[in-house]
Amino acid sequence: MSSFTPAQSDNVSISTIRALAADVVTKANSGHPGAPMGMAPVAHVLYSRLMNVNPKNPKWFNRDRFVLSNGCALQYVLLHLLGYKLSMDDLKAFRQLDSLTPGHPEAGHTDGKLEHNSFIAFVTTGPLGQGFGNGVGLAVAQAHLAAVFNKPGFDLIDNFTYVFTGDGCLMEGVTSEAASLAGHLQLGNLIVVYDDNHISIDGDTAVAFTENVEQRFLSYGWQVLHVDNGDSDLPAIYNAIAKAKLEKSKPTLIRLRTTIGFGSKQQGTHGVHGSPLKADDIQALKTKFGLPADRSFYVPPATYEAYAEIGKRGASLEAQWEALLDKYSQKYPKEHAELTRRISGELPTNWEQSLPIYKSTDAAQASRKLSEIALTSLAPVLPELLGGSADLTSSNLTKVKGSVDFQPPSTGLGNYAGTYIRYGVREHGMGAIANGIHAYGGIIPYVATFLNFVSYAAGAVRLSALSGHQVIWVATHDSIGLGEDGPTHQPIETAIHFRSMPNLAFWRPADGNETSAAYLVALKSKRTPSILSLSRQNLPNLEASTIEKAAKGGYVVHEVDNEALTIVSAGSEVSIAVEAAAKLDAEGIKTRVVSLPCWFVFDKQPQEYRLSVLRSGAPILSLEALSTAGWSKYSHEQYGLPAWGASGPYQKVYEKFGITGSNIAVVGKQVVDFYKQKGGPVVSPLVKAFAL
Amino acid sequence: MSSFTPAQSDNVSISTIRALAADVVTKANSGHPGAPMGMAPVAHVLYSRLMNVNPKNPKWFNRDRFVLSNGCALQYVLLHLLGYKLSMDDLKAFRQLDSLTPGHPEAGHTDGKLEHNSFIAFVTTGPLGQGFGNGVGLAVAQAHLAAVFNKPGFDLIDNFTYVFTGDGCLMEGVTSEAASLAGHLQLGNLIVVYDDNHISIDGDTAVAFTENVEQRFLSYGWQVLHVDNGDSDLPAIYNAIAKAKLEKSKPTLIRLRTTIGFGSKQQGTHGVHGSPLKADDIQALKTKFGLPADRSFYVPPATYEAYAEIGKRGASLEAQWEALLDKYSQKYPKEHAELTRRISGELPTNWEQSLPIYKSTDAAQASRKLSEIALTSLAPVLPELLGGSADLTSSNLTKVKGSVDFQPPSTGLGNYAGTYIRYGVREHGMGAIANGIHAYGGIIPYVATFLNFVSYAAGAVRLSALSGHQVIWVATHDSIGLGEDGPTHQPIETAIHFRSMPNLAFWRPADGNETSAAYLVALKSKRTPSILSLSRQNLPNLEASTIEKAAKGGYVVHEVDNEALTIVSAGSEVSIAVEAAAKLDAEGIKTRVVSLPCWFVFDKQPQEYRLSVLRSGAPILSLEALSTAGWSKYSHEQYGLPAWGASGPYQKVYEKFGITGSNIAVVGKQVVDFYKQKGGPVVSPLVKAFAL
Repeated sequence: MSSFTPAQSDNVSISTIRALAADVVTKANSGHPGAPMGMAPVAHVLYSRLMNVNPKNPKWFNRDRFVLSNGCALQYVLLHLLGYKLSMDDLKAFRQLDSLTPGHPEAGHTDGKLEHNSFIAFVTTGPLGQGFGNGVGLAVAQAHLAAVFNKPGFDLIDNFTYVFTGDGCLMEGVTSEAASLAGHLQLGNLIVVYDDNHISIDGDTAVAFTENVEQRFLSYGWQVLHVDNGDSDLPAIYNAIAKAKLEKSKPTLIRLRTTIGFGSKQQGTHGVHGSPLKADDIQALKTKFGLPADRSFYVPPATYEAYAEIGKRGASLEAQWEALLDKYSQKYPKEHAELTRRISGELPTNWEQSLPIYKSTDAAQASRKLSEIALTSLAPVLPELLGGSADLTSSNLTKVKGSVDFQPPSTGLGNYAGTYIRYGVREHGMGAIANGIHAYGGIIPYVATFLNFVSYAAGAVRLSALSGHQVIWVATHDSIGLGEDGPTHQPIETAIHFRSMPNLAFWRPADGNETSAAYLVALKSKRTPSILSLSRQNLPNLEASTIEKAAKGGYVVHEVDNEALTIVSAGSEVSIAVEAAAKLDAEGIKTRVVSLPCWFVFDKQPQEYRLSVLRSGAPILSLEALSTAGWSKYSHEQYGLPAWGASGPYQKVYEKFGITGSNIAVVGKQVVDFYKQKGGPVVSPLVKAFAL
Repeated sequence: MSSFTPAQSDNVSISTIRALAADVVTKANSGHPGAPMGMAPVAHVLYSRLMNVNPKNPKWFNRDRFVLSNGCALQYVLLHLLGYKLSMDDLKAFRQLDSLTPGHPEAGHTDGKLEHNSFIAFVTTGPLGQGFGNGVGLAVAQAHLAAVFNKPGFDLIDNFTYVFTGDGCLMEGVTSEAASLAGHLQLGNLIVVYDDNHISIDGDTAVAFTENVEQRFLSYGWQVLHVDNGDSDLPAIYNAIAKAKLEKSKPTLIRLRTTIGFGSKQQGTHGVHGSPLKADDIQALKTKFGLPADRSFYVPPATYEAYAEIGKRGASLEAQWEALLDKYSQKYPKEHAELTRRISGELPTNWEQSLPIYKSTDAAQASRKLSEIALTSLAPVLPELLGGSADLTSSNLTKVKGSVDFQPPSTGLGNYAGTYIRYGVREHGMGAIANGIHAYGGIIPYVATFLNFVSYAAGAVRLSALSGHQVIWVATHDSIGLGEDGPTHQPIETAIHFRSMPNLAFWRPADGNETSAAYLVALKSKRTPSILSLSRQNLPNLEASTIEKAAKGGYVVHEVDNEALTIVSAGSEVSIAVEAAAKLDAEGIKTRVVSLPCWFVFDKQPQEYRLSVLRSGAPILSLEALSTAGWSKYSHEQYGLPAWGASGPYQKVYEKFGITGSNIAVVGKQVVDFYKQKGGPVVSPLVKAFAL
């Protein structure tokens, strides 16, 4: 094991990080100075001695990954010192509108900042616990790609993932879930530094967090190390990280005792957690540190120089790696082509041709089953698919026959090249891990549970959407159609929750072609997560459905001229709408039917197309076996569930709530009569005074 | 410590429970036979020897509480044997429509089953991990009420809480959060039996759950016991529970090794987890157990007799307790009156008079601050309020000055009579614990975090609503108005998510009187949880607001005749709407403003009232600094956020998105022009063809 060689500039660099963090937060008059000030030593030791990154190429594939789970200004300060494209002016714009330095590190979101910001954070942190889960995902991805692509003498994929975390993250359930799975998966490439500063917002952790964290992580199967003086014992910090790197079959937690807000008059109290330091406190601190007390945002030349050396080392490491990759291309041309394709994120040519296509005469099937058929067809052509379920594999139908489990080889249950992850009953952890897997690159993760329990993972789904992580949720048993399990398992509010989330494609396909369309669009959307809301019960294939039409998010399923009524529906209720329309047509009430499998995608179509689908002239009635909330955007009248579902065989539950062809025909007639009586022209709800 | 005295009927009773569970699931052709068959011995030992309940009075206040966290048919079988009002026909109707025996135990929900079902389950289980959290809440409630009401010689409140849990629950993060807090709180009255059967839906727990559960619970500060043969070693089961009862300052986890589906040909495999047993398997099992192989739903007389004895013991215990309560009434008449009032759930007379009332000339304040003022006024008159925050006390403003922490006295930080719980950063656990606290009775829990992070607790909030638990969420920082923390912390989809959840009152008050109204209705709604969505930033008091008007969920804030436009808004945007209306009025465009602080309550008002508020005649424009989803139910046009928020000082963020009086006036004018051009009468969106 190597050892720590002190450099003259170490202390001044650490003091500089501390002072910069204080300056940044004070200038913004908002933020969290305490944690970056406390973690400056470990950040400095890690980056100056152990971390392999090249600031000139933030996307170098084999770089070490760094996640600041307790997301704060530390990330920005480090990026600036290291020479990433983040200027001192950017630091001064911390928490200001449209700056590169928002309140918490964002992997990128609106306003085209998506790519622009991607060097700042490849995962979004701030919401506690998410970064920890992302770190586990990054480590999973490394282990998987190493197993798939590395060859003897060609350790092309061998980076480490470092996560900094605090008390807050460790209290969160999502962290517990991810940590337990990381232990099971024996992820030796994952090193977590726990900032044990005894302080959270409510004060001393003694008020609520008195568990034995070391023992807890031992119970998960982690290696646990500790550094008693994280404020100044740099060799101990170095040795702990170096030791962690040597442990190949366990993730490591390093418990680092630090003093929050080190150097401040209020150090060690929650007074420095989430409020700026006062001016006199900062001055005194700088004097104590030997920095000019009157200069803000000051970086001594020795620090810039030391950090430039880190960059040089990283550039040289990348150059060596590129040379190795070049040799690999000669010895393993096929693998090389595949690896570089996957790194680029390009899908293989003609992969879409593997999508199943259905005729209306094909047998009715549950859309969860149609999803299984799609995955089975796609898996051979899309090896970047890395699937999994939260202990509902046989219900979600997400494991492709013959696929190998992603497991530590020592378990005898699979290996790291395996493409199916047993997540256990850990929905929230699964979501956060999947975000990390996608953030690594080269992999498209899909994950699964009942739609109702995607809500357990809402925090992670939100960050998929905000960060643009292409995670595909296979969310089965998506309505009262699940039947007997009853209201505790039947989604009501779930669809509108996720339909209202920006940059999330919530698909509720009605049949085979629509399911294929959902996969088509989800797989092509590199920066948008998707939820595929799928039925437990069988659904007939529609006459008019095609992948192409469904891929527009909405289309006409049953067309007539001069209609008296349009019924718009989604998922398992579309065929019920078709049945109702047939009954109405038979009674001389001409009825169109529209399927709207994905609002997000439909809303992106040209206004002209949308108005041709949901056209003016006749009232539009929406039908879905869920809350009607949100449907008034697309319809004049809404039929759905008034409250909770019910436990019972699903056909009986549908009957109970009047979601049958014959009752919807009755309701449809009511709507037609109502609008006849009302008189005047009926205008499409899509005709609006303005667009947001 | 007492010891186990075997009875002749023990084995036949256990076999009967196993066979009944198998019959129940097979008859329904749906359900989970394995766990009840495996846990029959512990259920029998617990109920026959140790559990204090009176089936003739399911609501006896000091009964032991039982939570089947891995919710399944076992609960129903036990209730029937014990003589609760659950007939053999009810068992035969398992998982059938409108039966008393739905797929998972429901505390009750729609169709007036609320009270009817309350004996079957006072907490709803099935969604994994929730029951565990509820159990912690039940134990918190017992400890609190004991500290408040017990007197020397009067241990009126001294019951235990027993939780049965499985691997699935223990994998969930919500369980980790609740378990860590239970250890911190030293809840000696909580006994959890962990059905360690090595099986979950994906098969052997070796595939995903290999952590050391005993060590993990030791790390939380629990006592951990184990029973190696939970299939037949009844004395060991008894001794473990008896020992658990003796430990007064730690919760206990008993790891019970069982064989899932004990007796089935498929015992010990996931084949018995979630699928009915085959007919021949059940017959063979009954033969093996010495039960008549050809009889379904058979209970031997010896078992009915043994269980009748349990009931008698319970009735006698309750009678003793009533006698003690009677003596207490003589010695402590004031405390007795208060205890019985709180048990009844009646609020004290005239408590509403403590609600703060505001004039429009009162200073602008943040609604989180207005909430603090309300809580400060209410706490002295409503001692049943037991508050807390997920480590955001100083931001949520939820701790009433001078209140004592709910803490184990040994910590020196408070005592169990304290009314403020430090939940730590454990939102989901907090929600599940609060459900348990309310289920106990005598307490109204309120909990707090940022609105955005209520989403972490969505699973628990859903069960509050489904079960009718009166939990009040103080959800602050409820929009882009939180400013600098940015999009990771700014809710977009959160309001519509919870507004679409049945039986949940989501309040977004606009000022002081509306905040008081939200508390008024939330506190009076005994079977409905509420989320109070509150601002970080200051809000002026409206001229027209009164508690009475706001308590209707919606009302006119600014009235004019023959308006050209109505703006409907909620929360922090109402005053911006008023500003816009003033500008429009000045330009001769007569504009009304409606405040809609609570859709759930507004929707319950008579149609006539609702139509007077959102009337026909002019277009209605909605305004909210959130997703516009759902607002088309109340308006013709919708203004809000098109996607994510942004990090920056909040005024700048509002400007960026055009949510200012002057821009909304411009938008309002566009709407008026658009409808003028469109021509024809403008009908209120509340005028519908049918009501669900």
